[in-house]
Amino acid sequence: MAMSPETNTTLEEIAALLKANQRFVIASHYRPDGDALGSALGLAFSLKAMGKDVTVINRDGAPVSLAFLPGASTIEVPKDGQSFEADVFIALDTAERDRLGDTVASAVNAPVTVNIDHHISNPGYGDLNYIDSTAPATGQIIFQLIDLGNFPLPKETCDLLFAAISTDTGSFQYRSTTAETYRIGAALIEGGVEVADISTKLYDSFPLRRVELMRELLAEMKISSDARVASWMLTRETRLRLGIKPGDTEGLVDILRGIDSVMVAAHLEEQPGGSVRVSLRSKSRDADVCKICQTFGGGGHQLAAGASVPGPREVAHERVLDAIAAALPTK
Amino acid sequence: MAMSPETNTTLEEIAALLKANQRFVIASHYRPDGDALGSALGLAFSLKAMGKDVTVINRDGAPVSLAFLPGASTIEVPKDGQSFEADVFIALDTAERDRLGDTVASAVNAPVTVNIDHHISNPGYGDLNYIDSTAPATGQIIFQLIDLGNFPLPKETCDLLFAAISTDTGSFQYRSTTAETYRIGAALIEGGVEVADISTKLYDSFPLRRVELMRELLAEMKISSDARVASWMLTRETRLRLGIKPGDTEGLVDILRGIDSVMVAAHLEEQPGGSVRVSLRSKSRDADVCKICQTFGGGGHQLAAGASVPGPREVAHERVLDAIAAALPTK
Repeated sequence: MAMSPETNTTLEEIAALLKANQRFVIASHYRPDGDALGSALGLAFSLKAMGKDVTVINRDGAPVSLAFLPGASTIEVPKDGQSFEADVFIALDTAERDRLGDTVASAVNAPVTVNIDHHISNPGYGDLNYIDSTAPATGQIIFQLIDLGNFPLPKETCDLLFAAISTDTGSFQYRSTTAETYRIGAALIEGGVEVADISTKLYDSFPLRRVELMRELLAEMKISSDARVASWMLTRETRLRLGIKPGDTEGLVDILRGIDSVMVAAHLEEQPGGSVRVSLRSKSRDADVCKICQTFGGGGHQLAAGASVPGPREVAHERVLDAIAAALPTK
Repeated sequence: MAMSPETNTTLEEIAALLKANQRFVIASHYRPDGDALGSALGLAFSLKAMGKDVTVINRDGAPVSLAFLPGASTIEVPKDGQSFEADVFIALDTAERDRLGDTVASAVNAPVTVNIDHHISNPGYGDLNYIDSTAPATGQIIFQLIDLGNFPLPKETCDLLFAAISTDTGSFQYRSTTAETYRIGAALIEGGVEVADISTKLYDSFPLRRVELMRELLAEMKISSDARVASWMLTRETRLRLGIKPGDTEGLVDILRGIDSVMVAAHLEEQPGGSVRVSLRSKSRDADVCKICQTFGGGGHQLAAGASVPGPREVAHERVLDAIAAALPTK
């Protein structure tokens, strides 16, 4: 395992600290995803099974799509000025302290902060920091901690860590997924995970309006630059007509990105004020979408970036396609 | 493991037979999917590494979407009247002899036929039959055979069996996926599988016409039975207009299956002769799609089954929706 230089402890030391103390507050980043909640709640169930007092807090609580996770309803959303006392504060899957959110970061009163994460950019803001950027999910590190500390592994923890790892690896597919990840999957199934049930809840359970949205977007799909660019526009009318909610569009751009000839996929969304939010995905560093977005005052990474472009939408779409075309490498 | 009553041998006996013979022909069902080709080619690479003479044949060869699989270009497509001599004929992942296709079934001249499969409806048409309907993929049985027989496990075989298992389990998600399946995943990764590379090739790299097909199918989507059934029809016109190839439709039905209210998803395809091929996917054993398909002379599993229904297509669609509606549990 390649530990970040910010790592100043071992899982053994963390396990010993957890065993020696009684009261814990566990938090993870705001707008939590499956790994953030699965790791926090998964560790909480294990500690509770040891008789510890554990509170899980999150600025935003669980999103509707993850409300099925065991313990999701017990997550406390701190109000302004509320405070939580603990022997140990554990921050999970949170690359920067700011990503806990103000209400969380200021709420916890604990003499020791443990910071466990798999984000390479984590600066080590805890007292004890364990940052393993080779881990595909913080959930994998929590499994290793529980395994190594010989902590209890209740069924709830198995479900939660499975959800954490599965969602952060795109169902055991992304690059950092290793044989170890699959072995942990096996151990969690032996601990009681019903793979099909939890996978259905995680992936195959979207509202009809998401498929209707897919239909509308595909009907509007534009293929340009010799099929090296694919784009679509979500208009305000369509969003209102279908009752689109935040999260409904998540991942849909992968349909465009998956086309074999496509180098750059563009998801455009008309905003309430009339401007257009642009999300670009590139398959190649030769088509640097961060640079394209910077020309519109946006930014991001080489392979994933965003910007806001003034409307009207047809003009914005045209401008974005022109900017992408100009940035594509010559064939 | 729950063996079908048609099973009349063990993997040990099959391993001994393979070791004792020299010339093999391996076939799997026509319109082959990842499991059919991955199992056949995966076993072929292992046998070849033992110095055996192996020919893999398939009525349709590899679809474009699976042409990247190691050995795909070596698959022989038998011409009418062509014959293949072997000591042992191995039929994999093929629920009925007919599903090999006439040109394959009549082409092979071998004193012994081994039939290895995971379809519960397999009637045991071989001399040696090993039918494990609890296995999520024939690829998993082939891994067990190779493991148990101590056969070589070259990297190609690892890639092929990983592709077989991943595609037949929807990336390690479907109900029959067990801890054993994940352990096999780990073993195959240790054997050299690059998970992200192969997953991208399997799932995130499709021709533009597949997305155009998705657009057409979504435009034709029907929601029925209080949104518990979703269906669509691929017409001959659309197939010809878009130049659809076998494999292009693979997995698209999961879009329908994923709608949260849906219990049964139906993909219908108008055939050249005017009949309609039906593929049904169920989310619940309470809606047994194998039974529904049997009423049309088809078969399969409780959660995934198929049949052929006479045209015209509107009538077939209506009949299928009626049969599903009648089989749904009362609310």
